[in-house]
Amino acid sequence: MTGAIRKNFASDNIAPICPEVMQALQDANAGSAPAYGNDPWTEALTTQLQSVFNTPLTAFPVTTGTASNSLALSALVPPYGAVISDETAHIATDEGGAPEFFTHGARLLTLPSDDGRMNPDAFTDAIARNRDGGIHSSPIRALSLTQATEWGTVYHPEAIGELAAIAHENDMPVHLDGARLANALAHLNCHPAETTWQAGIDVLTFGATKNGAMAAEAVLFFDTPHGNRAKTDFQRRIKRSGHLWSKQRYLSAQILALVKTDLWLENARKANHAAQRLAHGLARHPGGHLPFETQSNEVFAVLPEPVVERLEQAGFLFYRWYTPPGMNGILIRLVTCYETEDADVDALLAAL
Amino acid sequence: MTGAIRKNFASDNIAPICPEVMQALQDANAGSAPAYGNDPWTEALTTQLQSVFNTPLTAFPVTTGTASNSLALSALVPPYGAVISDETAHIATDEGGAPEFFTHGARLLTLPSDDGRMNPDAFTDAIARNRDGGIHSSPIRALSLTQATEWGTVYHPEAIGELAAIAHENDMPVHLDGARLANALAHLNCHPAETTWQAGIDVLTFGATKNGAMAAEAVLFFDTPHGNRAKTDFQRRIKRSGHLWSKQRYLSAQILALVKTDLWLENARKANHAAQRLAHGLARHPGGHLPFETQSNEVFAVLPEPVVERLEQAGFLFYRWYTPPGMNGILIRLVTCYETEDADVDALLAAL
Amino acid sequence: MTGAIRKNFASDNIAPICPEVMQALQDANAGSAPAYGNDPWTEALTTQLQSVFNTPLTAFPVTTGTASNSLALSALVPPYGAVISDETAHIATDEGGAPEFFTHGARLLTLPSDDGRMNPDAFTDAIARNRDGGIHSSPIRALSLTQATEWGTVYHPEAIGELAAIAHENDMPVHLDGARLANALAHLNCHPAETTWQAGIDVLTFGATKNGAMAAEAVLFFDTPHGNRAKTDFQRRIKRSGHLWSKQRYLSAQILALVKTDLWLENARKANHAAQRLAHGLARHPGGHLPFETQSNEVFAVLPEPVVERLEQAGFLFYRWYTPPGMNGILIRLVTCYETEDADVDALLAAL
Amino acid sequence: MTGAIRKNFASDNIAPICPEVMQALQDANAGSAPAYGNDPWTEALTTQLQSVFNTPLTAFPVTTGTASNSLALSALVPPYGAVISDETAHIATDEGGAPEFFTHGARLLTLPSDDGRMNPDAFTDAIARNRDGGIHSSPIRALSLTQATEWGTVYHPEAIGELAAIAHENDMPVHLDGARLANALAHLNCHPAETTWQAGIDVLTFGATKNGAMAAEAVLFFDTPHGNRAKTDFQRRIKRSGHLWSKQRYLSAQILALVKTDLWLENARKANHAAQRLAHGLARHPGGHLPFETQSNEVFAVLPEPVVERLEQAGFLFYRWYTPPGMNGILIRLVTCYETEDADVDALLAAL
Repeated sequence: MTGAIRKNFASDNIAPICPEVMQALQDANAGSAPAYGNDPWTEALTTQLQSVFNTPLTAFPVTTGTASNSLALSALVPPYGAVISDETAHIATDEGGAPEFFTHGARLLTLPSDDGRMNPDAFTDAIARNRDGGIHSSPIRALSLTQATEWGTVYHPEAIGELAAIAHENDMPVHLDGARLANALAHLNCHPAETTWQAGIDVLTFGATKNGAMAAEAVLFFDTPHGNRAKTDFQRRIKRSGHLWSKQRYLSAQILALVKTDLWLENARKANHAAQRLAHGLARHPGGHLPFETQSNEVFAVLPEPVVERLEQAGFLFYRWYTPPGMNGILIRLVTCYETEDADVDALLAAL
Repeated sequence: MTGAIRKNFASDNIAPICPEVMQALQDANAGSAPAYGNDPWTEALTTQLQSVFNTPLTAFPVTTGTASNSLALSALVPPYGAVISDETAHIATDEGGAPEFFTHGARLLTLPSDDGRMNPDAFTDAIARNRDGGIHSSPIRALSLTQATEWGTVYHPEAIGELAAIAHENDMPVHLDGARLANALAHLNCHPAETTWQAGIDVLTFGATKNGAMAAEAVLFFDTPHGNRAKTDFQRRIKRSGHLWSKQRYLSAQILALVKTDLWLENARKANHAAQRLAHGLARHPGGHLPFETQSNEVFAVLPEPVVERLEQAGFLFYRWYTPPGMNGILIRLVTCYETEDADVDALLAAL
Repeated sequence: MTGAIRKNFASDNIAPICPEVMQALQDANAGSAPAYGNDPWTEALTTQLQSVFNTPLTAFPVTTGTASNSLALSALVPPYGAVISDETAHIATDEGGAPEFFTHGARLLTLPSDDGRMNPDAFTDAIARNRDGGIHSSPIRALSLTQATEWGTVYHPEAIGELAAIAHENDMPVHLDGARLANALAHLNCHPAETTWQAGIDVLTFGATKNGAMAAEAVLFFDTPHGNRAKTDFQRRIKRSGHLWSKQRYLSAQILALVKTDLWLENARKANHAAQRLAHGLARHPGGHLPFETQSNEVFAVLPEPVVERLEQAGFLFYRWYTPPGMNGILIRLVTCYETEDADVDALLAAL
Repeated sequence: MTGAIRKNFASDNIAPICPEVMQALQDANAGSAPAYGNDPWTEALTTQLQSVFNTPLTAFPVTTGTASNSLALSALVPPYGAVISDETAHIATDEGGAPEFFTHGARLLTLPSDDGRMNPDAFTDAIARNRDGGIHSSPIRALSLTQATEWGTVYHPEAIGELAAIAHENDMPVHLDGARLANALAHLNCHPAETTWQAGIDVLTFGATKNGAMAAEAVLFFDTPHGNRAKTDFQRRIKRSGHLWSKQRYLSAQILALVKTDLWLENARKANHAAQRLAHGLARHPGGHLPFETQSNEVFAVLPEPVVERLEQAGFLFYRWYTPPGMNGILIRLVTCYETEDADVDALLAAL
């Protein structure tokens, strides 16, 4: 890779495994080990995550973020219930119907927002209207938030606390999709507890794949009434969906490699740093603007069509996003990752 | 591991990844690659499997055997249908309800057999009785066979052909759970085509995890009317169940490492060889007998209780199986794998 | 009931059974009859509906509109697919998650509209955006329309034809929720074929409960490619959802009583007439206005809060509807039925 | 029907509605009534059933026995769980996959028995073996019994008590399929409480359709810990499966007509009486024998093939049942109902 410019800003999931995770896989590959999660790596992972979050918790590693989110939701809502989220949530837009599959048909209700962060008043109104529907509605039974959001913004812990409090007052558990939690923490520079269980999160999807792992996330149940209730039989849900690895050590070892040191936060900081550099460069471009504040590793920019084409022709990979009416130009998404270098960003900015 | 005796005969899924697969993971870990299966490794895997089976086919790698089997069945039967299998089939006994989950509630109908191999007459009778149930029954809509079976026996290709013909005459597709297909082929010493599509198999679970991979199986749809119909939208089923890896190269690379040479068959031959050695040793033990012929890498033996205890106390790991009434002693299962050495087997036999 | 004023405008489903239907139930109650739909009433019903719609069709009577709609959709979309409808559709707002239950988790995608009638351009745009989502989306696989709509408006047959054509071009079957089809036909004064199969409808929920029956609807599959494919095994879907009456004659007899003459249209005409009288009276009220054209038996009116309270205090039953921001007053819904008399309407108008 | 001989012994569900139930439907057909169960008939039904069973209970009327059983089970077991029943149970043999549909894929585990009545030791053994399966099994989470059984036999209350005690010790709720509970009570001549909640039943399917109603059963939740937990949101389950009648009065009125007096028991006594007469006559026939004791309204008889053919040719309707190997002749099932007269029975006996 020496000297080569990485032109891939399409997603943080096209990056390779970071070296420390690959090393951990090799280290785990010695001798036999008990199957189905009864191995030392899984035990160490739980211990380490309890230390990271400074609280008792139960951790279930699974392969993908979609599985992690959907399995979590299936433990939170009955099949006749509904989950409420922001309309940009990954569960609502990018999981191919997995939430409905795992929950056996629970409905996703979504709320529009300015920047991917749910508005507490809109949430309160939605609960009231849903209740009016009575037996004919799908009753909202869980709140799912995303940190960092799909627009690259980050909730302040107090904002999560406010939303979670509304949920809990209405007897709803709160799930956090933390596929990019590390990026949010790197931005907030707060303790992981503050934006999760201390703010009222009961169940967390702890993302690792986008942060340097091969294919690994963990569903964390915090020590809350909702969290403890939901984790019952959770291993059975994992098994039943074909997500229980016999050789689970290789799943746990990936996450463990990231969290046994601050590597997970360092990787996120690198990605965030690249995103900031990118955002500042794009914002300075005449005719360009950033519709959302860049707070994690996703940069959304509106650029004139010719500029976007120029970047594409120069070989840079990124997504043209759906451009809402009224935006003057093309909305694109650029994602950085743990291995994005300043030179990679500068090459793109130079190509503008 | 030098010199140490492996005492673990509990399962072939507690073994580590074989060196060639681990090397393949490292080799794949360079630079970015398109996500969700649009990578060169996945393409090469399909090409190579077509060569191995000498026929056009479509391959979908997934993480676990349970996922592979259940996803395949979900593409074969409607939710109101039934799948018929031997009563010892993994789908019927060891998948935690996954077939019902993925098929949305299709029923598993099972037939008893002498040694895990379905009897064609019993199959024919079951179809007739099921049809009599009319609208009140769950209509049998697919046949699922297992090669090698859960009792360690192996179907002759003609036996599969006979069962598949009955299925096809009744408009049922045929699925083969090939978690240990390599072991069956090592025993049969026939071409992979003979015991699969040439015998009437439409969809195959091609196992790799038990044969040296980390966590990888592939669902193969052969170029048959049933196979082609079933593969429609299959990627959507994978995505919806959270089984679509973003970094799929690491899934495909595992299987590719096994099948790009004869490694997959060599690994199976080693495991089978160890099982034979074990079987012969156990059969010679006074008071012991083998209820089933050992044809793959699973050895079932009935031994006197004190002998079983002696092995356990000597630190050997294996399962006490459910012992049907009438067997004089304790039924145990011993499983060998690609890294079981003669010395490992001999140490167990010496401890008898 | 002589002389008493009916004050119940809450719904058309709180009315009693109309006399002809009750008589039919009594007439059917003689001797034994084959169970599960193999009775003469069910056979006669199919014949009569074929005559009414002037086309070959297959009819499956079931108990409720929710069951009818959801069963139909389950035959049209795969579990990983999506159904698109207007955002006011009964399936989207009032069926307690039944569509998700019967389809095993298919998603409902909804489009906003001015008056409950889907806009063809919005439909076309939605298909394009959905397709862009690729494997991560829930692919739209069926269109569901409602005639008359939940706002009491009625599609012109050509409007249905335009939407159905878009659907068919995209290989989607078209379902029509005809819970109030009779009211729509009474308004359109066209042949039943024109607004159904001739306009491109493949599957129809033919409503009877709101039109004088006790509890009876029929799912009609028209003789179209989509219709014929979807009706396969439909009786199994009915059975499996507990909707197959053993004494089905009593289900079929209800609908037969309505359609063997023009009673079903006469009942609808009476209800529509009452709705027109009501609408005209309300529109004349100072401070009141009707946000939608009254074209069937539902009248939506915005009235000043004190007027609404006055009606409530006078004992009139109706629903306060969700009042969108910007409407000056309270939005209420008033529903008439086959037994609503001019005097009933006039009493309400007098109470304004 | 005067003078005509009823030759229909095929099922108790091909009989017409008994006069008292038909009258009740007519009586209920006056004026409007609140929808969805908020009507006086439903309220009266609950009160009356509480009196009949002499205990607080919650009653939910639904249309069919299949719906009633499956809805009940869906409230008792998680989707990854299993229900255990006798292998002849209606839920296991005749409900077209409905239990799997409503429970979202829970598995039915069945036990063989001599005469349809589960053996307590077999139940205990099954629990032990299921537990051994660990995460790979579908854990048994509910017991479902049938009273009277599908072989026409009746559990003594103590036998139910013994089975229910085992279930409760293992934290499993107990469901009773009482499609023919009235027939069982007519045989036992005990109080309804004795064979239900006092024996440990938590949830009961109270059958009416086979006993003179049109299409009506009720799910009764007794005032037990399991019963109270299971009834939560039950109305939502009914709605979601399309089983919530808008005009529910006509559903409740049917059952109320049967239980507001002893009519339900009288109807059952008549059917049982006819069955006894039939059984005695068949048992006396040379070459015939009854494999099960006739204790309700189902008579199973083994007759020589020519005799069976003679009855069929004489126009009598009944089912040839699956005849297990070893029975010398043809196993047939004859079912009596509330309107079977002695003359009807005698005509059949004479035709032997």
